Amino acid sequence: MDEKRLIWTEEGRKQVFDSRVFSVWESYCKAPESQPKGETQTFTVIDAMDWVIVVPVINSPGGKQFVMVWQWRHGSQCLSLEFPGGVMEGDENPKEAAIRELYEETGYKPEKLEKIGEFSPNPAIMSNKVHFFLAENLVGDGKQNLDEDEYVEVTLVDTEEATRGMGKEPYIHALMGTALALYNQKKNLNPQTV
Amino acid sequence: MDEKRLIWTEEGRKQVFDSRVFSVWESYCKAPESQPKGETQTFTVIDAMDWVIVVPVINSPGGKQFVMVWQWRHGSQCLSLEFPGGVMEGDENPKEAAIRELYEETGYKPEKLEKIGEFSPNPAIMSNKVHFFLAENLVGDGKQNLDEDEYVEVTLVDTEEATRGMGKEPYIHALMGTALALYNQKKNLNPQTV
Repeated sequence: MDEKRLIWTEEGRKQVFDSRVFSVWESYCKAPESQPKGETQTFTVIDAMDWVIVVPVINSPGGKQFVMVWQWRHGSQCLSLEFPGGVMEGDENPKEAAIRELYEETGYKPEKLEKIGEFSPNPAIMSNKVHFFLAENLVGDGKQNLDEDEYVEVTLVDTEEATRGMGKEPYIHALMGTALALYNQKKNLNPQTV
Repeated sequence: MDEKRLIWTEEGRKQVFDSRVFSVWESYCKAPESQPKGETQTFTVIDAMDWVIVVPVINSPGGKQFVMVWQWRHGSQCLSLEFPGGVMEGDENPKEAAIRELYEETGYKPEKLEKIGEFSPNPAIMSNKVHFFLAENLVGDGKQNLDEDEYVEVTLVDTEEATRGMGKEPYIHALMGTALALYNQKKNLNPQTV
């Protein structure tokens, strides 16, 4: 891979929109020097706090199950069945945010929590990251602790059912597919422990 | 799952930002009627054209390989190793866009192209969809046909290597993890054909 042909250089940026959840910036970037059209161009990018997504697994007599949550999603205007997760708050680190989100949305606390990967949710237009965790040995009081405008319903889903369902309703959130890929990556590396 | 407790109703929306790639809207939504705080709240959502991502697979003597592309990503300001894909144009359907993007970025045309799933890239804040395809029996002249500001380098990656690498550099694009989850879903359903 020839980096000189691919790497752009940001020369400046300006905020053009701001909201509670994200801000939008114009990014002024110089094209790779070796390219014929080496001038500066403008790209629009979205800045937001990092997110966390937790894959909580329970061993039941019938097999392994994911703890998942039903919630309404305002971007797609529909119900979505997802792994718990959310936005990092204040000076939390990703692990702290994962524990908090899992507890708020499901009432469970994990005795074992392991980071299984990290992505940009969309590096073409977003600058933040999403951190993925595997949560096991769950201890729970079954009592949610949600934000005022957050209505979430907890359910258990067989891991095989979720795996088959991804990419079809109600498994419509692409980052849950990402989480499943990391869960399977982990399972293939250590089949006896996951 | 109790829909009455979860479903919000959009009562209106207003555009608050626009760019070449996406627009931003304020969405005014009434909370589920059964909830104690049933008032209208404002959410910020991003509207964009649908995207396509293509998983192109080649059978080589050493095993199966993905055709992947290196490119600079302006949101994350770094190089990323990805499946080909991009934004649907004009009145294209997803399949036409998949064929076009694959050809533009890699020079390959697929004799066999199959849709393997569909997600919202992020239903919390985005209204568009991303369509995933499996491309096989590739026929290629090896000549890219890129947009003026699109610098992309093609490479072949063993499927096992990409599978192990997801969630770590240079496999930083979350939607490529999603694509891999759908590829594995397909492979598990029809192990002899993929």
